[in-house]
Amino acid sequence: MSGSIFGKNLRVSTWGESHGKAVGAVIDGCPAGLSIDEDYIQSFLDRRKPGQSKFTTARNEDDKVMIMSGVFEGKTTGTPISLLVFNTDHRSADYGNVKDTFRPGHADYTFDEKYGFRDYRGGGRSSGRETIGRVAAGAVAAKLLSEFGVSFTTYVDMIGNIKVNETKLDKAFINENPLYMPDKDAYEKASDYLSKLSASGDSSGSSVKCIVSGVMTGLGDPVFDKLDARLAYGIMSIGAVKAVEIGDGTAVVNSTGSGNNDAFIVSEGRISKETNHSGGTLGGISDGDSLIIRASFKPTPSIYSSQKTVTKDGNETVLAIKGRHDPVIGPRAAVVVESMTALVIADLLLGNASSTLGNLKKIYL
Amino acid sequence: MSGSIFGKNLRVSTWGESHGKAVGAVIDGCPAGLSIDEDYIQSFLDRRKPGQSKFTTARNEDDKVMIMSGVFEGKTTGTPISLLVFNTDHRSADYGNVKDTFRPGHADYTFDEKYGFRDYRGGGRSSGRETIGRVAAGAVAAKLLSEFGVSFTTYVDMIGNIKVNETKLDKAFINENPLYMPDKDAYEKASDYLSKLSASGDSSGSSVKCIVSGVMTGLGDPVFDKLDARLAYGIMSIGAVKAVEIGDGTAVVNSTGSGNNDAFIVSEGRISKETNHSGGTLGGISDGDSLIIRASFKPTPSIYSSQKTVTKDGNETVLAIKGRHDPVIGPRAAVVVESMTALVIADLLLGNASSTLGNLKKIYL
Amino acid sequence: MSGSIFGKNLRVSTWGESHGKAVGAVIDGCPAGLSIDEDYIQSFLDRRKPGQSKFTTARNEDDKVMIMSGVFEGKTTGTPISLLVFNTDHRSADYGNVKDTFRPGHADYTFDEKYGFRDYRGGGRSSGRETIGRVAAGAVAAKLLSEFGVSFTTYVDMIGNIKVNETKLDKAFINENPLYMPDKDAYEKASDYLSKLSASGDSSGSSVKCIVSGVMTGLGDPVFDKLDARLAYGIMSIGAVKAVEIGDGTAVVNSTGSGNNDAFIVSEGRISKETNHSGGTLGGISDGDSLIIRASFKPTPSIYSSQKTVTKDGNETVLAIKGRHDPVIGPRAAVVVESMTALVIADLLLGNASSTLGNLKKIYL
Amino acid sequence: MSGSIFGKNLRVSTWGESHGKAVGAVIDGCPAGLSIDEDYIQSFLDRRKPGQSKFTTARNEDDKVMIMSGVFEGKTTGTPISLLVFNTDHRSADYGNVKDTFRPGHADYTFDEKYGFRDYRGGGRSSGRETIGRVAAGAVAAKLLSEFGVSFTTYVDMIGNIKVNETKLDKAFINENPLYMPDKDAYEKASDYLSKLSASGDSSGSSVKCIVSGVMTGLGDPVFDKLDARLAYGIMSIGAVKAVEIGDGTAVVNSTGSGNNDAFIVSEGRISKETNHSGGTLGGISDGDSLIIRASFKPTPSIYSSQKTVTKDGNETVLAIKGRHDPVIGPRAAVVVESMTALVIADLLLGNASSTLGNLKKIYL
Repeated sequence: MSGSIFGKNLRVSTWGESHGKAVGAVIDGCPAGLSIDEDYIQSFLDRRKPGQSKFTTARNEDDKVMIMSGVFEGKTTGTPISLLVFNTDHRSADYGNVKDTFRPGHADYTFDEKYGFRDYRGGGRSSGRETIGRVAAGAVAAKLLSEFGVSFTTYVDMIGNIKVNETKLDKAFINENPLYMPDKDAYEKASDYLSKLSASGDSSGSSVKCIVSGVMTGLGDPVFDKLDARLAYGIMSIGAVKAVEIGDGTAVVNSTGSGNNDAFIVSEGRISKETNHSGGTLGGISDGDSLIIRASFKPTPSIYSSQKTVTKDGNETVLAIKGRHDPVIGPRAAVVVESMTALVIADLLLGNASSTLGNLKKIYL
Repeated sequence: MSGSIFGKNLRVSTWGESHGKAVGAVIDGCPAGLSIDEDYIQSFLDRRKPGQSKFTTARNEDDKVMIMSGVFEGKTTGTPISLLVFNTDHRSADYGNVKDTFRPGHADYTFDEKYGFRDYRGGGRSSGRETIGRVAAGAVAAKLLSEFGVSFTTYVDMIGNIKVNETKLDKAFINENPLYMPDKDAYEKASDYLSKLSASGDSSGSSVKCIVSGVMTGLGDPVFDKLDARLAYGIMSIGAVKAVEIGDGTAVVNSTGSGNNDAFIVSEGRISKETNHSGGTLGGISDGDSLIIRASFKPTPSIYSSQKTVTKDGNETVLAIKGRHDPVIGPRAAVVVESMTALVIADLLLGNASSTLGNLKKIYL
Repeated sequence: MSGSIFGKNLRVSTWGESHGKAVGAVIDGCPAGLSIDEDYIQSFLDRRKPGQSKFTTARNEDDKVMIMSGVFEGKTTGTPISLLVFNTDHRSADYGNVKDTFRPGHADYTFDEKYGFRDYRGGGRSSGRETIGRVAAGAVAAKLLSEFGVSFTTYVDMIGNIKVNETKLDKAFINENPLYMPDKDAYEKASDYLSKLSASGDSSGSSVKCIVSGVMTGLGDPVFDKLDARLAYGIMSIGAVKAVEIGDGTAVVNSTGSGNNDAFIVSEGRISKETNHSGGTLGGISDGDSLIIRASFKPTPSIYSSQKTVTKDGNETVLAIKGRHDPVIGPRAAVVVESMTALVIADLLLGNASSTLGNLKKIYL
Repeated sequence: MSGSIFGKNLRVSTWGESHGKAVGAVIDGCPAGLSIDEDYIQSFLDRRKPGQSKFTTARNEDDKVMIMSGVFEGKTTGTPISLLVFNTDHRSADYGNVKDTFRPGHADYTFDEKYGFRDYRGGGRSSGRETIGRVAAGAVAAKLLSEFGVSFTTYVDMIGNIKVNETKLDKAFINENPLYMPDKDAYEKASDYLSKLSASGDSSGSSVKCIVSGVMTGLGDPVFDKLDARLAYGIMSIGAVKAVEIGDGTAVVNSTGSGNNDAFIVSEGRISKETNHSGGTLGGISDGDSLIIRASFKPTPSIYSSQKTVTKDGNETVLAIKGRHDPVIGPRAAVVVESMTALVIADLLLGNASSTLGNLKKIYL
């Protein structure tokens, strides 16, 4: 069954394995007339680029994106936009030891169970390189959304038990540190923590928060394609995500109706909410407030310390994973969360254009 | 844009408003030859039925399901199964006061913003009655899964800060208490807590855990239609859900690779995992272990104490909601979580049938 | 696999068998704010109603449609519109003789091969009654299109070798004769022809032409969801249709480029075409001219004269079909062709709303 | 709205313009374990290759396909198969004169109307080069089908009024003549006819017949996704197709029930049909007989003789199209028809795997 296509109106089809010729994405349904170029898309890809600090893998990947179709004289034509990134560093040698052994926490075992065999080179399709397609496409979606005043603030809000101080976010700092944290203190503590874990051959969990400003009301299609449902779908589809929260998330369990309900008020002549426990969505439809999304990433499963596991032939063994691996997933995944969020919102924005007869009359009459 | 159809292979289309003539679901794509009857479906619907205790609304709803098509001589025919439940108690009087005022925490405002107006009677399409369609369809999916040894244990695991003791679950007790908790102590504490909240016109948050046993390996379609992604999609689409967790969920953030990775072992001649932090899915594909899903529900937004809000005309006002409302959502929603889970798994089970040439040869050659 | 849902933006899910409790349709994605009522939908259903003349079956079917959801105070709410028609005449007795024997030209054999068994009462899901769902939904689509000036002229253009004179169509006459032909002469000849065939226990083929006026330019989504492709899809899905033609149809084979190309001209200040060989679509996108669609229907397969066939057990036998059957399909199917056409156009109209950044800006900025 | 993705289970996403960097297709959902290589796919592409005779354009296009992903050690992995063909001959000079003028019979006008502008180089996305993606993907589908004994015979059956003699098809001759006709006499007459038309700057219509042998019973999903409906959808989506016929096609109009019904018989111990007027499908489900599909192609719209038309600015003008163009579309389009047919059948074959509980038990129990 097809599983590599995402979206209903703006459809993204991604392809490619870690050590194949290339990875890519095809975006179908992007409205015509949007200005876009390779530099813009590259700026998103650079945020997930490895080799930028001691906390990211040292593989030398250029990850230069090429627009292969769908853009003419700087504007989208309304036809499919094909984006392609060649794999320049695909020596398979490092991965030989995992050919016949299932790495704990990885998809080796389940791919073999599902498909009968797998492209074992560097994780193949289940490699983090798969997210290049998501990010390239997400950049186009984000560009489209920027035309309507929608903007993103995305950062790592927790690594291990080190949490950023949400009351004094330093947004400028986010892109100035390799952990994409908006808080210098938290960054330094997390940096120390990761160094220690790395030294012991271990890794850490982390979480990413994405705040979307400027979202118009009305996006999301009850009952199944609620805004929050589509966000959960898109974000939980990112490898290593184990929880998706909207607004107050799991904290609602220990809340009360009087504490959790956001009072409606009139502010600057417009209806708005006094608080934003809802995280910008009511009944699955955007309420005009900022969207607040949080994704919890499990620790990097590739660790250097030896682990008990089983071979393809069903024999128990001990595995020590070689190669270079990030000791934490969140920092490089932040832009992936933002990209999936942008894809979901753009998709719903397109679909919502036909939600009322009034909207259609604005276009056709 | 269409938003009331769920699934890719097993497609469920639900319809109906709280105070309309009826609510229903149409299931398209159910394999032919499955034994099913109204009693079986009714047993699922009865679990979401109100009027069973002081913690559920006293509306007198019979909610008797009728199979309108797609079943012949006790078996599914492979054609659409139409399920219908008439609304028997749809006096609109109680809801008059919310016609022109936006209830905090409800979808009144966003429906008006999206569609221009709304069926204000009892929440209309955003009412909890909408879940009847989900549960009726979910019952069919659960029946299908039972043919393959898949079974469900679903319960309320937390109300406010009262958490069930997961180390000694009393499964038999789940259906013997109106809060669907598997732990008598927790039930009694939660019961007291809810009584106090009710008395003060307030409500509580809660969470539901769903454990699925007997899931075969191989379900889920990377990269976007991962098992966990589809589960998150389905469960976050349930009204009032603010977080979806798989396996260890948000706890992975403060974990390490060595602590979170599940070692593979050989047990009784089969490959399995020593622990189940993953919650039964690796790389988005079922790993043969139990699926563990947790949904966090916000407190019931309908509370009796008065709340600040705004009228349709943009005037601030104070609203006191009348009528009867549950002080907590989880207990009646447990079966909804189970139903959406069943729909997702059944959908992926159908799609996975064509995942390998070998599978197809078993059928066609 | 699900096969009873049609459309991408405006999704119609139909259900029901000939002799089950009811047949119905659920329309998801209809824009909010459209005025619609049961009478309007009924006027479409009445056009496919049997029992109106000697050329249609005498089964006493009221086929009264009920709107079960999605319409509030006379307007669509943007949520699913459930339409239901109870089956009032479902004695199964007449159909007993086809329980174990495959009727030639019918779906008995293939349903058994696909699903292992079938609801044999009156054709079950493959009965012409299935089209009630299409027509009820099509009426809503046609109502939506009427808001934008789109209108339909649909008639039987050929029965046997009797062809209507296209140069002098009498549109008013279409609804005044039971064969829905726009030409009194042709009607009378066809009427005689059918009487003779009926008398000999035989039936005739026919074709239906649907002309759609007022279609705006720009509908249809290359390369696969071209306007003509979606029309072919929708119309070939009607039982007994064996050919779909757009514009000049099969006649293009014996044409030349100079004869078939429609010259562009300026007329009344607007760009239009001098001729309309294209049938209103160029490159799969509506060109502003009238859409011209033609569907060829095979002769009614239920005939009274005896036929060679085979039983379920694989024994050759001779079958004489009893009951009442129309000697020609086109007349009652004309409204089905119109309905499917309306559904396709409305679906593409909704989707096209997001085809350009300019369109979206009209809505959101 | 997205329009470049085809299929439900086996999803093909095509991209690319005539004079862009490349054209390509991504196939998602192909079962794992299928042997495939570039040579096999190339053999399909070579059949649509220009420059092979005086009747095809002399553009020097190598059209070498590259498999970019989804195949490992010669077998499909179950993940997306990305196929890419670089455009090697994309000088834009020849097409300058059509930048501001709408070519009759082309999509220039409608693309401008829909998207606001277009990539005018060589037809852009509406160029025949778009079919490379279809054919590359279709080759994979055909390879899959060959595993189940399904095979194709596809030929041009009519050019102008020259029709091949269906009673004595010379299948071997099909690939030995540049018009892909199975009849030497017809080929020679058609060849003469085309030479004369070419000389006068004109072009001819044509039709393609595709016969599929070895199709198992049971493919096709009533009521909307009937086998014939999906075929009509896929084939009418090919540029220049104006009619799709199944079995006897338009000839059924002048037939009778007794003449058109195919009697069931028992032959070699199996149920089959005495005749095949149905073209291999009953009730939208394959009946085990050969599928017979016919597509009518309009004459090549690019002709050398001058034509009346209008400029983008709305001024009438006269256009003489330069460059090289085939005088007939059918011969190079035959493999496109076959490819779309293969994609449809493979898609339905995958979906049908879950049509019965029995099928699923063969896989999972």
